[in-house]
Amino acid sequence: MRWNQMWLNYALAEKKGQCPGKEYFSHVFCPEMTAVTGSAVKELQRFAKEVFGMDCRVNEHEEKEGRGIVLRLSDDNNFGQDGFCIFGEGDTICIGAHTENGILYGVFELIRRIMRGENPENIYTKQTPEFKYRMLNHWDNIDGSIERGYSGRSFFFENDNILFTERLEDYARLVSSIGINQVVINNVNVRGKAAFFITDEYLGDIKKYADLFAKYAIKLFLCVDFAAPITVGGLETADPLDETVKKWWKECVAHIYSVIPEFGGFLLKADSEGRPGPFYYGRNHADGANMLADAIAPWNGKIIWRCFVYNCKQDWRDGSVDRAKAAYESFMPIDGQFRENVILQIKNGPMDFQVREPVSPLFGGLLHTNQMLEVQIAQEYTGQQIDVCYLVPMWKEILSFHTCCCEGRDTVADIVSGRTFGNTECGIAAVANTGNDANWTGNDLAAANLYGYGRLAWDSTLSADAIAREWCECTFGCEKKITDSVTEILRMSWPAYEKYTTPYGIGWMVTPHTHYGPSIEGYEYDAWGTYHKANHVAIGIERGPEGTGYTSQYNEPNAAMYREIETCPENLLLFFHRIRYDYKMKNGKTLLQNIYDLHFEGAEDVEKMICLWEALKGELPEEVYARVRERFDRQYTNSKNWRDIVNTYFYRMTMTEDEKKRRIYD
Amino acid sequence: MRWNQMWLNYALAEKKGQCPGKEYFSHVFCPEMTAVTGSAVKELQRFAKEVFGMDCRVNEHEEKEGRGIVLRLSDDNNFGQDGFCIFGEGDTICIGAHTENGILYGVFELIRRIMRGENPENIYTKQTPEFKYRMLNHWDNIDGSIERGYSGRSFFFENDNILFTERLEDYARLVSSIGINQVVINNVNVRGKAAFFITDEYLGDIKKYADLFAKYAIKLFLCVDFAAPITVGGLETADPLDETVKKWWKECVAHIYSVIPEFGGFLLKADSEGRPGPFYYGRNHADGANMLADAIAPWNGKIIWRCFVYNCKQDWRDGSVDRAKAAYESFMPIDGQFRENVILQIKNGPMDFQVREPVSPLFGGLLHTNQMLEVQIAQEYTGQQIDVCYLVPMWKEILSFHTCCCEGRDTVADIVSGRTFGNTECGIAAVANTGNDANWTGNDLAAANLYGYGRLAWDSTLSADAIAREWCECTFGCEKKITDSVTEILRMSWPAYEKYTTPYGIGWMVTPHTHYGPSIEGYEYDAWGTYHKANHVAIGIERGPEGTGYTSQYNEPNAAMYREIETCPENLLLFFHRIRYDYKMKNGKTLLQNIYDLHFEGAEDVEKMICLWEALKGELPEEVYARVRERFDRQYTNSKNWRDIVNTYFYRMTMTEDEKKRRIYD
Repeated sequence: MRWNQMWLNYALAEKKGQCPGKEYFSHVFCPEMTAVTGSAVKELQRFAKEVFGMDCRVNEHEEKEGRGIVLRLSDDNNFGQDGFCIFGEGDTICIGAHTENGILYGVFELIRRIMRGENPENIYTKQTPEFKYRMLNHWDNIDGSIERGYSGRSFFFENDNILFTERLEDYARLVSSIGINQVVINNVNVRGKAAFFITDEYLGDIKKYADLFAKYAIKLFLCVDFAAPITVGGLETADPLDETVKKWWKECVAHIYSVIPEFGGFLLKADSEGRPGPFYYGRNHADGANMLADAIAPWNGKIIWRCFVYNCKQDWRDGSVDRAKAAYESFMPIDGQFRENVILQIKNGPMDFQVREPVSPLFGGLLHTNQMLEVQIAQEYTGQQIDVCYLVPMWKEILSFHTCCCEGRDTVADIVSGRTFGNTECGIAAVANTGNDANWTGNDLAAANLYGYGRLAWDSTLSADAIAREWCECTFGCEKKITDSVTEILRMSWPAYEKYTTPYGIGWMVTPHTHYGPSIEGYEYDAWGTYHKANHVAIGIERGPEGTGYTSQYNEPNAAMYREIETCPENLLLFFHRIRYDYKMKNGKTLLQNIYDLHFEGAEDVEKMICLWEALKGELPEEVYARVRERFDRQYTNSKNWRDIVNTYFYRMTMTEDEKKRRIYD
Repeated sequence: MRWNQMWLNYALAEKKGQCPGKEYFSHVFCPEMTAVTGSAVKELQRFAKEVFGMDCRVNEHEEKEGRGIVLRLSDDNNFGQDGFCIFGEGDTICIGAHTENGILYGVFELIRRIMRGENPENIYTKQTPEFKYRMLNHWDNIDGSIERGYSGRSFFFENDNILFTERLEDYARLVSSIGINQVVINNVNVRGKAAFFITDEYLGDIKKYADLFAKYAIKLFLCVDFAAPITVGGLETADPLDETVKKWWKECVAHIYSVIPEFGGFLLKADSEGRPGPFYYGRNHADGANMLADAIAPWNGKIIWRCFVYNCKQDWRDGSVDRAKAAYESFMPIDGQFRENVILQIKNGPMDFQVREPVSPLFGGLLHTNQMLEVQIAQEYTGQQIDVCYLVPMWKEILSFHTCCCEGRDTVADIVSGRTFGNTECGIAAVANTGNDANWTGNDLAAANLYGYGRLAWDSTLSADAIAREWCECTFGCEKKITDSVTEILRMSWPAYEKYTTPYGIGWMVTPHTHYGPSIEGYEYDAWGTYHKANHVAIGIERGPEGTGYTSQYNEPNAAMYREIETCPENLLLFFHRIRYDYKMKNGKTLLQNIYDLHFEGAEDVEKMICLWEALKGELPEEVYARVRERFDRQYTNSKNWRDIVNTYFYRMTMTEDEKKRRIYD
């Protein structure tokens, strides 16, 4: 299968002639050639060839012979680990950095700017990434399937084998171009032969991946099975305090590093949704993580430990349990007990990647523990890359949320950048949305989420619109009409999806298991702790002090804000409170009427997005146009299903008519 | 895996010494030895050996040397095709019949009676089966799975192969012993390699099956893919009026009969749930069935054509379509257009094997077409052989339903026995509940349904209790305590299941796809045409003249009875009518209070059944006791889930309290 190059789509840029600065690409001088700066040079050469049809010569010496590009490593460590500057210096465009990685990122920034029509002469920029760890988590299974994958099958694995295709290098180029520096290639649910990645059966192949990734400044991580001492090692136990277990992991890790000296470390999902973990042995998560951390510390490896721990065998009849409280309850008591090379990876919200959730109270709760934010690019609950849903605005809201853990520098971005606590082991991780579809992401517009994630992970102050425009121009060319329309579609998309799906943060009205399309009571009596308890009069779980007490997990004044219905943000009203349908909201309409209105609006918004897209017919490559158009058909059907089923559900429940007398099926 | 012998469980009979008449088993005389009478003799010998520990000699001549058994074919064709008589004649127990099949059935009847303690000297019985075709449909797939199978995997197929195990002969003995004379070995949904059963790739193996079955008086049938001319034959079309298609089927059938002269015919599911059929070519079902009937007629083969045809891509918003009406609408206009060797196989109800449905109006509607009743022994919607649900009482209600198609002889049993229209091609078919579990049927008590089906198919006037006692005594021995308790459990089980699941015939409140456990709105907005439209005030689909008009498919006075709420049987009230929760039912309580009451009662009934079972500990083989006890645990959990979820659903919807203030979760 052929595949496209997403935002590194030079063929279109060449065709459109949108790139200035051709004259600088006659030669490049790179005094310190390494694997990574070598990739940087190759990227410049490829760009020159494909966009300008010219060979970019590599100079051995810094000659003065007209315009050129210089890649210069500098002693100036103000750039930080991965930072760079780009500036014109006479005839030369100079990219300076303190590390080879910085050079590579600088080159991609230069290319991106030229792709967008910026004359390199005028570029002056100095950048340091905001987050140290900018990670992708792939939920790819060794059988070639992808958990919550919506864009084909894995290009890493198939049929218990590790794949080697040309696509792998394109993958590395693409994610490196947006600053990703860590990749976990396998699913957090480690099943079947994937448990044996840490053995010689697979390590040789994995080393080849690590080497290829290293050329693009990417560290490779693996998910491991906490029970690997049993499943792989043949021991009787995986108890983290057992000496034979400790010894087994030490030897396992030593062996991995003997094969892959640049290995990054492990990501673990433990004691969650059926995965084994320390609880089984009466240990806590610090016991589990620290044992692995001690094993891997000699090689400077990291243990990334997910906080997605809750009771997934809940009884809906038992109102005393609140899933939203689970992660905080598990991890707060052990704040400060983790090794320095352990990082807790915390999902953005307390539930699971719903279209709207409050920020997890672990952010601002944990004061003495390394933390990473986990978001989901894969649109599991947000339209599955059938529906357009541009998630950058959501992630920006999360990153800019004030946790009130201290005076100033208290946002999630502050915490996971290290600004709050001065720690260095922190960052941001995201579940990737890629697969082996020709366009990588199923819906072409879903690529904006992958791109945007990388850009936000580099600089969370970039605006969602600016990122959308960047992505659009690199992908589709610099015509204003295209950029304006696509950006408008992206801007509308998350609010539209939220409008036509679950209202006011209540979540979970999706079809069980698949998580696409409406099933209002699909999770209502299930074991997952995801209930709305709608009755004839009211809906929602009360999470204030009179209810489950979840609001008290937040620092003040957030706790008070969420606790009081009057101050609770309305878009989270039904997450925090049980509310009567006749409750008057700030716009003067009842909750119920707002639910009706939102659902009609949401489906109308989809029609508007379709109109915007249809106006681009002829402006975009026909293949792209048609592919997205087909997805919009499905999105439109989906939005109408949501609209009608949600509205009918509440109409049947309340027998209250829509004020505007629109069609609600009875 | 070892397996037991269900009601042919001679080991237990031997142990308990419950069988009289040992002296008659010294010898058997069978003047006309054929394949089938040979099986009859073998059955007597096996019984003698296993129960009395003696060899039953086969006499060459009718000697007078003390007590013995004589199997005698007679010219008296009052016995009918499969009938027999058993009577004592001096020292001899004589089994007489007009056909070899009759001899075999007589032997099994003799054994059954002796197993139950009846002295053979006192037996005088003359029997003719009520239904000519007594068929089992196995929904076994060629990969070894069983569609809606709840007792292990297939013992016919595995991994695209036809299996040959000792179990196969036990299977033939077991079903023959209850009078089954036709078996369809593969799923009506013909998938994968199963389409190639009709080719040389499989016909050799299938012939071996047919030969084995023939020894037990069983004809083998196959399900075929209506599109086989394309999928198997490589033609461009499967249009039943296309000459190349007709020719292809003729040659296909001729070849089958050249290999298997005793082949029974085909069973087809066409134009249903995604299966191909004549509609695709603009033809009707008579066109489709008759084309096959013409191909198979020269060999006296039969085409059994299912009437389970409906739109499974319905839009819940479109109230103009009523799935209940579909089969009647498809088949009534072509009544009388089918060949004589076509038999329409009609599901008992208009929907799909729910715990309570009215009888299909095709019975009594069709006046000029051969018909078979189809019931489901496999407990797809009735507890999946986890929950006990003795279905014989349901089948008896169906068989004794007066269709009012004529004066007298108007019951379903009359129609499918041939008494109503004098036709010969008719009978009864059932989806089997067997698999390769040691006990064949998952729940040991589910074997009563298989047994009971065969017995009813032989004589629909047998009472449900009498059948239960027969089955129980043959299976567990003749202790009255066991028989009384097990019969009481069986008697309670269908009413209990109905009480704790969907009320008053409304159906479909089950978990989608799996069909076990409650999901009140699981099918509510789906495409299957299965809606209850519960709102704050009322529930149900109005199927009278003001509604979908379904009631008019019945003959008068049934149509009037169902049309009027006052005369509609209450157990079908919500099938036929939309009813307010405050409607006063005949017992003076509201519909809603009755729903609450039934659900509490249903779960209590399960507790009572468990008590009855527990009192048998020590009386039954420990393995059987424990296996059923474990199922009861699961049934109890299931019944509580149903009780609580149904009650909570209606409580939330109506906000009306239970009069008796029992616990309903909010």
